[in-house]
Amino acid sequence: MLDLAIFGAGRIGSVHGRDAAQQPGARLKYIVDPIASEGRAKLVAETGAQIVDAATVFSDMDVAGVIVASSTDTHAKLILDAVAARKPIFCEKPISLDFATVLKVAEAVEASGVACMLGFQRRYDPSFKAVRNRIASGAAGNLEQIVMHTRDPAPPQVSYVERSGGMFRDQAIHDFDQARYLTGEEIATVYAVGGSMIDPAIGAAGDIDCAMIVLTTVSGKLVSMNNQRRAPFGYDQRLEAFCAKEAFFIDNHARDTVTVGSAAGYTSAPPMNYFIERFADAYRAEMETFVAMITHGAPSLANIRDGVEAQRLAEAAIVSLKTGLPVGVDREWRPA
Amino acid sequence: MLDLAIFGAGRIGSVHGRDAAQQPGARLKYIVDPIASEGRAKLVAETGAQIVDAATVFSDMDVAGVIVASSTDTHAKLILDAVAARKPIFCEKPISLDFATVLKVAEAVEASGVACMLGFQRRYDPSFKAVRNRIASGAAGNLEQIVMHTRDPAPPQVSYVERSGGMFRDQAIHDFDQARYLTGEEIATVYAVGGSMIDPAIGAAGDIDCAMIVLTTVSGKLVSMNNQRRAPFGYDQRLEAFCAKEAFFIDNHARDTVTVGSAAGYTSAPPMNYFIERFADAYRAEMETFVAMITHGAPSLANIRDGVEAQRLAEAAIVSLKTGLPVGVDREWRPA
Amino acid sequence: MLDLAIFGAGRIGSVHGRDAAQQPGARLKYIVDPIASEGRAKLVAETGAQIVDAATVFSDMDVAGVIVASSTDTHAKLILDAVAARKPIFCEKPISLDFATVLKVAEAVEASGVACMLGFQRRYDPSFKAVRNRIASGAAGNLEQIVMHTRDPAPPQVSYVERSGGMFRDQAIHDFDQARYLTGEEIATVYAVGGSMIDPAIGAAGDIDCAMIVLTTVSGKLVSMNNQRRAPFGYDQRLEAFCAKEAFFIDNHARDTVTVGSAAGYTSAPPMNYFIERFADAYRAEMETFVAMITHGAPSLANIRDGVEAQRLAEAAIVSLKTGLPVGVDREWRPA
Amino acid sequence: MLDLAIFGAGRIGSVHGRDAAQQPGARLKYIVDPIASEGRAKLVAETGAQIVDAATVFSDMDVAGVIVASSTDTHAKLILDAVAARKPIFCEKPISLDFATVLKVAEAVEASGVACMLGFQRRYDPSFKAVRNRIASGAAGNLEQIVMHTRDPAPPQVSYVERSGGMFRDQAIHDFDQARYLTGEEIATVYAVGGSMIDPAIGAAGDIDCAMIVLTTVSGKLVSMNNQRRAPFGYDQRLEAFCAKEAFFIDNHARDTVTVGSAAGYTSAPPMNYFIERFADAYRAEMETFVAMITHGAPSLANIRDGVEAQRLAEAAIVSLKTGLPVGVDREWRPA
Repeated sequence: MLDLAIFGAGRIGSVHGRDAAQQPGARLKYIVDPIASEGRAKLVAETGAQIVDAATVFSDMDVAGVIVASSTDTHAKLILDAVAARKPIFCEKPISLDFATVLKVAEAVEASGVACMLGFQRRYDPSFKAVRNRIASGAAGNLEQIVMHTRDPAPPQVSYVERSGGMFRDQAIHDFDQARYLTGEEIATVYAVGGSMIDPAIGAAGDIDCAMIVLTTVSGKLVSMNNQRRAPFGYDQRLEAFCAKEAFFIDNHARDTVTVGSAAGYTSAPPMNYFIERFADAYRAEMETFVAMITHGAPSLANIRDGVEAQRLAEAAIVSLKTGLPVGVDREWRPA
Repeated sequence: MLDLAIFGAGRIGSVHGRDAAQQPGARLKYIVDPIASEGRAKLVAETGAQIVDAATVFSDMDVAGVIVASSTDTHAKLILDAVAARKPIFCEKPISLDFATVLKVAEAVEASGVACMLGFQRRYDPSFKAVRNRIASGAAGNLEQIVMHTRDPAPPQVSYVERSGGMFRDQAIHDFDQARYLTGEEIATVYAVGGSMIDPAIGAAGDIDCAMIVLTTVSGKLVSMNNQRRAPFGYDQRLEAFCAKEAFFIDNHARDTVTVGSAAGYTSAPPMNYFIERFADAYRAEMETFVAMITHGAPSLANIRDGVEAQRLAEAAIVSLKTGLPVGVDREWRPA
Repeated sequence: MLDLAIFGAGRIGSVHGRDAAQQPGARLKYIVDPIASEGRAKLVAETGAQIVDAATVFSDMDVAGVIVASSTDTHAKLILDAVAARKPIFCEKPISLDFATVLKVAEAVEASGVACMLGFQRRYDPSFKAVRNRIASGAAGNLEQIVMHTRDPAPPQVSYVERSGGMFRDQAIHDFDQARYLTGEEIATVYAVGGSMIDPAIGAAGDIDCAMIVLTTVSGKLVSMNNQRRAPFGYDQRLEAFCAKEAFFIDNHARDTVTVGSAAGYTSAPPMNYFIERFADAYRAEMETFVAMITHGAPSLANIRDGVEAQRLAEAAIVSLKTGLPVGVDREWRPA
Repeated sequence: MLDLAIFGAGRIGSVHGRDAAQQPGARLKYIVDPIASEGRAKLVAETGAQIVDAATVFSDMDVAGVIVASSTDTHAKLILDAVAARKPIFCEKPISLDFATVLKVAEAVEASGVACMLGFQRRYDPSFKAVRNRIASGAAGNLEQIVMHTRDPAPPQVSYVERSGGMFRDQAIHDFDQARYLTGEEIATVYAVGGSMIDPAIGAAGDIDCAMIVLTTVSGKLVSMNNQRRAPFGYDQRLEAFCAKEAFFIDNHARDTVTVGSAAGYTSAPPMNYFIERFADAYRAEMETFVAMITHGAPSLANIRDGVEAQRLAEAAIVSLKTGLPVGVDREWRPA
């Protein structure tokens, strides 16, 4: 029996904890979360895990892997502690809101040889994965353009916005990651425009809620990102990819498959609300991969380096937004 | 220049008259319609045709073909007159509401050798035609089931119902024709259920407004017809065909291609209203075929025999509805 | 902790067993299945249940409910044993292939007052349930027509066909149930046509693989069933309902939401294969309801009477198919 | 009878000529096209127009309006000649490939008071028009983002590319126009990236075949344009608009409404090929508007100033592409 521990029993932690516990041959032994929430109690009930402190986890020789799903400000230290304890890591993005810390943590992980998976769950979604694999196979012809849409169902509360690192680091980071994943290339230029059009309080907090970003890859492929903090119809998570011989359209997942025909026309259900539902399969696949990575060294679809590079693009987008100019990026680039 | 004449300048007559006039190398020389309507005036203005009486049409040696789009009670005589004048005929369905007359007219046409096309326009629709041809080619595998949906956008006025011959002869006749056209077989049994659920005045007039009909072909293929005099979303004209290797779904034609996403979900446009718009291409193709039939003997997709057989099925359905029993039909069957 | 026992650890038994074990406050204590299959082993591993014999289940005072998911020929006896032990029952359909036995068992259940839920899972599917509730609310206007499509992804093996009771008792029974559930009425007439067009071996075994059935309800509503043992594109499970003000279209559930655009047009994914995947939510909801029925007498959506009535319609359809005539049914009707 | 004249009897000239001739109360009196093509002969046959030279058109007092659909290099002079003859003008875009000439011609038109309609046909398409009007009504809430897709079905020949003025002036100009039309605002910044990925010969000719352009309006609305000279599935002409309360999706127009279900999934028809078919309704509406503009001064949806402003954005995009920097634009901006 493979023993796992999770840090954080909030919304996403509960998903990972439950999925981890349901992996054949694995169990969730420990939960580290100092706050006695309803979610934590539920996770305990469902998994039989014990509430302990971090030291217990890292000193228990039986713990074969740790899942970091606590608040962002704790990620860097937990990763470094896990590296010190030589425990394989699954970490939710982002690594840190401070890019210098991101780089430092990534270097430590890479130097240690401890396996570290990043929680870019979209890479594990059957639809996104199928499109990526088809493109990578060459059967669709040369990839020329990608257009992504990411819109939250409703704007987050300002208290969340304030500690989120901003829309680019918090929400768009998944799209930056997809740009690299789907093109199979590094990004060469980043240009971002945007502003606060949805909730003035978000603007007052120094963040934006609407943005468009254009990326070019080193070979000249074109990527368009269209991000908002609200869509009128709910959670919008779509992608279009245009290759020479095939184009791909990944649509939203509808809540049900009923269409109503009336004098108003045909009405069908809005998308699932929210990422927990939409990406339930992807989250399960992440834990399956994490267990496979621990037990027999299976490769993950996203590692700490992918976390670094996606965040580098978010940092570049922030610079572009401020300066009004495109930013050229490479492995050495970092914000001034 | 090929000279054509039309009987009837009402709704469907105006469509045929205009389409005939726009055929390259053809013109509409005469319109026969005793009622000075706005539609007749418009058709004259658009085509330059002259208003004349029937005798003028039949005695003019230059008239190369006649289009019968007048009221149903005039069809039989006009066909017989055209046969006598040896002028190729395009006739709107039905030939007559009286089946004995239908048989008599068909026999006269067939004995004469005068070409006679029946206005089953659905055979000329690009979608229905493509499905029929694909099935006939054998590429889709053996055809097993057909399911048709025909629903008017709104129930007709009772005055129309009273002279229509009833829903089976008036509306469902197109579906009976499609059953023969798509299966490429004659029908062996007819079973109909139905009643008046939409407009009590239709029931009071002795007709029905909702029906389901099941047909079997001589080889055992199964056909389902689902007919109503109203659909909540507008004109419903769909078909599903299930073969061994491929299934076909012919959908309605939407008024536009805009989808609106809101908190209520996604709403798209209702179907085109009504058959004049939905089958505009098919009506044009009918006149193109009629001209080709006249000029070089090109075959039509529906002749007077198809009109007889579709109506025989309507008559059998009427008997089935009355008796509550299925009716076995063949070339000799006729209502008692 | 609510203790449950399951009979049968095959395909559907595994689904119910797992779902039962995951109900909060419930556990699967016993599995009764004499055959040491891989599925049984997996179910034991996932639920921690013990393999026991039937006597142990019925004599254990702690067993609060039994799930009957064993082969059809065992259902009747297990239900009667559960009634004798006064244990609430969840039973997969059908109750028995012999209608006299069905009636006898139902009478025993009803006389005993022991709660008995029937496994018509489609009633628990969010889409079917939403449509049914909307219709029942009256907001959609009077229901006039229902058109159902049920097609298996591939024809069953002849060995299965031989012990299935035939396509009407085995597959179409769900549609018969839906006809009653959605119209909220009893059925008055049944007319069936069909034959073996897909696999001659099915015909040789005395069954059919294609059928169309028309039902009328006591108030005159019309229902069309279109059943096949294979669809070229996979599992076909759709429903259309036409009311005065709204029409409802329940579509298949696609395997993913990717569309590929190429010179051939747009291609999207086939339906989920098969009912285990398509109705996963419905199966979970069944067990949730079963637990609620046991713990606080919550009503189920389908009871043993619904099982009787659906099967009566299957029996009537068999008679109609044989005689070529419609069959009038009521609460007293039974096959000769 | 309103007499109209057309310059150019090529592909688009034939469409306009035929549509003009079919306007009630109007006729096409003259065609000016020095090349004796099949298209010109067909247009003469269909409309009864005479082939004449330009001088005849401008000196004929009866000519109430002129349609300029000849090659781009003739537009400027024909507009100025029409202004001199005080004849209302319908002109295909672009006015000229030389922006200084565009400005000069526009100033002459505006000073003269002669009505001049620009051929931005997308403004007349029922779907685009409906979306624009809904947004303009305010009912959808504040417009925040527009995402457009324009892809030709196949790359043009290099000979066409060489005289086209480049992809931005030739193809993307319609999208620039839509950006202004739908937002109801002027554009403040233009940023373009792109290259030749589809046909190296296009790159060798100094043009590009793939581009992404981001615009911001003066109030900060965001617009994304995704342009290519080829889509694998045919002509791609879509738009998405995101407002606070409603989002709009304008889809392609399919060639037919047949879906084929097979083991490969569901396949539906590719889009209509090409703009002549896709925008047939819009072209008709343009001529209807042109006639209404002549007869009673009805406003057109696009005038010469709209031509200037769309082309200004194309010029700015060319500068952005060359410099790699965004370009700030206003009414005074012009390329160096």
